[in-house]
Amino acid sequence: MSNETPNLLYAQSGGVTAVINRSAAAVIATARKHTAKIARVYAARNGILGVLREQLIDTTGESAETIEALGNTPGGAFGSCRYKLKGLAADAAKYQRFLQVCQAHNIGYFLYNGGNDSADTAYKVSQLAATSGYALTCIGVPKTIDNDLALTDVCPGFGSAAKYTAISVLEASLDVASMSETSTKVFVYEVMGRHAGWLAAAGGLAGKSSDEAPQVILFPEIKFDEASFLARVDATVSEVGWCVVVVSEGLKYADGRFVSEAGGKDAFGHAQLGGVAPMLARMVTEKLGYKHHWAVPDYLQRSARHIASGLDAELAWKVGEAAVEYAVAGRNAVMPVIKRVSDAPYRYEIHAAELAEVANNERFMPREFITEDGFGITDAARRYLEPLILGEAYPPYQAGLPAYAVLKNELIAARLPSWTG
Amino acid sequence: MSNETPNLLYAQSGGVTAVINRSAAAVIATARKHTAKIARVYAARNGILGVLREQLIDTTGESAETIEALGNTPGGAFGSCRYKLKGLAADAAKYQRFLQVCQAHNIGYFLYNGGNDSADTAYKVSQLAATSGYALTCIGVPKTIDNDLALTDVCPGFGSAAKYTAISVLEASLDVASMSETSTKVFVYEVMGRHAGWLAAAGGLAGKSSDEAPQVILFPEIKFDEASFLARVDATVSEVGWCVVVVSEGLKYADGRFVSEAGGKDAFGHAQLGGVAPMLARMVTEKLGYKHHWAVPDYLQRSARHIASGLDAELAWKVGEAAVEYAVAGRNAVMPVIKRVSDAPYRYEIHAAELAEVANNERFMPREFITEDGFGITDAARRYLEPLILGEAYPPYQAGLPAYAVLKNELIAARLPSWTG
Repeated sequence: MSNETPNLLYAQSGGVTAVINRSAAAVIATARKHTAKIARVYAARNGILGVLREQLIDTTGESAETIEALGNTPGGAFGSCRYKLKGLAADAAKYQRFLQVCQAHNIGYFLYNGGNDSADTAYKVSQLAATSGYALTCIGVPKTIDNDLALTDVCPGFGSAAKYTAISVLEASLDVASMSETSTKVFVYEVMGRHAGWLAAAGGLAGKSSDEAPQVILFPEIKFDEASFLARVDATVSEVGWCVVVVSEGLKYADGRFVSEAGGKDAFGHAQLGGVAPMLARMVTEKLGYKHHWAVPDYLQRSARHIASGLDAELAWKVGEAAVEYAVAGRNAVMPVIKRVSDAPYRYEIHAAELAEVANNERFMPREFITEDGFGITDAARRYLEPLILGEAYPPYQAGLPAYAVLKNELIAARLPSWTG
Repeated sequence: MSNETPNLLYAQSGGVTAVINRSAAAVIATARKHTAKIARVYAARNGILGVLREQLIDTTGESAETIEALGNTPGGAFGSCRYKLKGLAADAAKYQRFLQVCQAHNIGYFLYNGGNDSADTAYKVSQLAATSGYALTCIGVPKTIDNDLALTDVCPGFGSAAKYTAISVLEASLDVASMSETSTKVFVYEVMGRHAGWLAAAGGLAGKSSDEAPQVILFPEIKFDEASFLARVDATVSEVGWCVVVVSEGLKYADGRFVSEAGGKDAFGHAQLGGVAPMLARMVTEKLGYKHHWAVPDYLQRSARHIASGLDAELAWKVGEAAVEYAVAGRNAVMPVIKRVSDAPYRYEIHAAELAEVANNERFMPREFITEDGFGITDAARRYLEPLILGEAYPPYQAGLPAYAVLKNELIAARLPSWTG
């Protein structure tokens, strides 16, 4: 290792969020304050692939204003990827390449912004570096709209997706209620969350009483029963005049099949076009005769920076900032996590969790967050969720559109042979 | 007609918007200033059906604060309906009932907030009242996200849906761009607009150059050609790495069939679940091999008050206000419309258009707003569209959600026998 001041390498991993770039901005801004310990901040292009390919972006040329704008920009500004490294033995060549690239560019700190898999990778890299005698401080930075990271009260990214979901369900329900006398009576809104119902639960924040949406939430945790679903929808339409359903893409039948995959064939002979919302909407019309509409916001729910949660934006910044502070303090193989101190007002502390522990645990939604009948959220869920959507972190606008950052993203010169892995 | 000060009757019609309630709030607030000429403001429950059913809401008990909050609330607060009256001869009994209800409640002004059909109905009511010797001033208030009303530069409601669309396409495209190296390469976003491509065109505001979304817009005005569509998508992915497609729900093949209806059968043997976006997304994967995602925001695009256009909110207020001023000035059978004076800065005047003229004309998107290749918008389209999304009319928030108005909506006592029509 050279005696020069080391550089810091930051990378984004997996599905992006409305505020992952805010963590990136915090990392860069905080690192710039530690000139004695951090020379330059590099960002890997397209996540860990950019490390293996030796495609490193030097952020030094980006102005403070651009970095501030980055903090208000959704998506992953340096590129992210779905690319999981296996164990140190199985993917030995890739881990070796990883360290070679770090050495070639005098990387002393590796900050990996992602979920469980990324925590696992960062942990393994830290182990390898230690056994190789290479001084590399590895820090995880939490991120995921799925909210499935262990040891943290909430994952940055989730609060904004939750806020978008609650607002969208509320707004659409006012539309449906207006028109229900002569038009749509049942509206089905599909949320992401293949394995856990956190975002479906967030949809429940749109209303509380039975005449407010959503009257039915379908969680991946609760096996789908067509008869009881239809009975609940029918009773709601009879009582209220309309019904809003929030459904998780991960909804399953008792036999484990995804409901979204249970339909017919499309024009190409494939399983139907996907989307559990259109599937259920059609079922409602077929079995109950009610006119339906459905919405699948898809990526919109995880990129809606225009209505990001104020708290979420704050937490995304704090974990980025803390990650750099841990790094320069030499705390290796940790991840800053959020510890809730009180619900209302929401108070929290940032703690360091061991990457090894984060990597090997998954957070599930407690059963007590779902009402006994399986169609709604409990007061306990509301106490947990409500603070997470507080505040509106509006981006600045120009000409009617959010003024999102555009980075130069110029790659630095490679020093190693091309990667052929 | 009694010698008492007459009441004003307001009704909402057809598909609602993010700002139709702002017109309602302007009508109520402005009418309250004219105590010498307007006694009370009634609102019909569920639009014109509420008139026929003699279900009238007295808004007098709503506080000024509630009316202000109404102006920040999406949907139709009094209920709207899809219910079209035919000609005066064909629906003679209904028109007679309409006048009877007005007479029973001393209605001197009828303000109908809707699109072409509503302008037509308001015009016919005004004709009938005149021939019946009943003093009823009928005024239209323009509204529709479809932007298909003649004689006005823009329809209140369109600007907010346009802003939502442009922002959503921009945000989703940043997500797609981040992940395209290892995940989704083609994203398809579906907009409303069965007959005209105004909202599809608004999606074009998200970007300008070929490395910005949307690279492909599919308008209902341009017949769909699968081969040229796929070629364009393929070329874009090759050049940029990813491709965002905005498609109108009204996209048609050359033979006039809707593309959304051209797919296979679903599990129930019906035409496929609907949504042209999933249809095209599947086509892209089938023919080009690219991973896809798609979004159908549906009602979200017309209820997203949380990101309403500032200009749109202003225009919605102005037409409601002008409608009342026309009413008390005794201007019968007119509609306030917007005349553009300049593009940048956007300047406009409110004029009175004859309802008869509004009713019998439809506004189409000019062909010169679409590029020659049929896949994009021209500079002329940008000059028209850009001002319409200016400004952010944020609603106030409480506990992380927009503080939308909840009205009492209590019906006044009926004075006539029940309607059996």
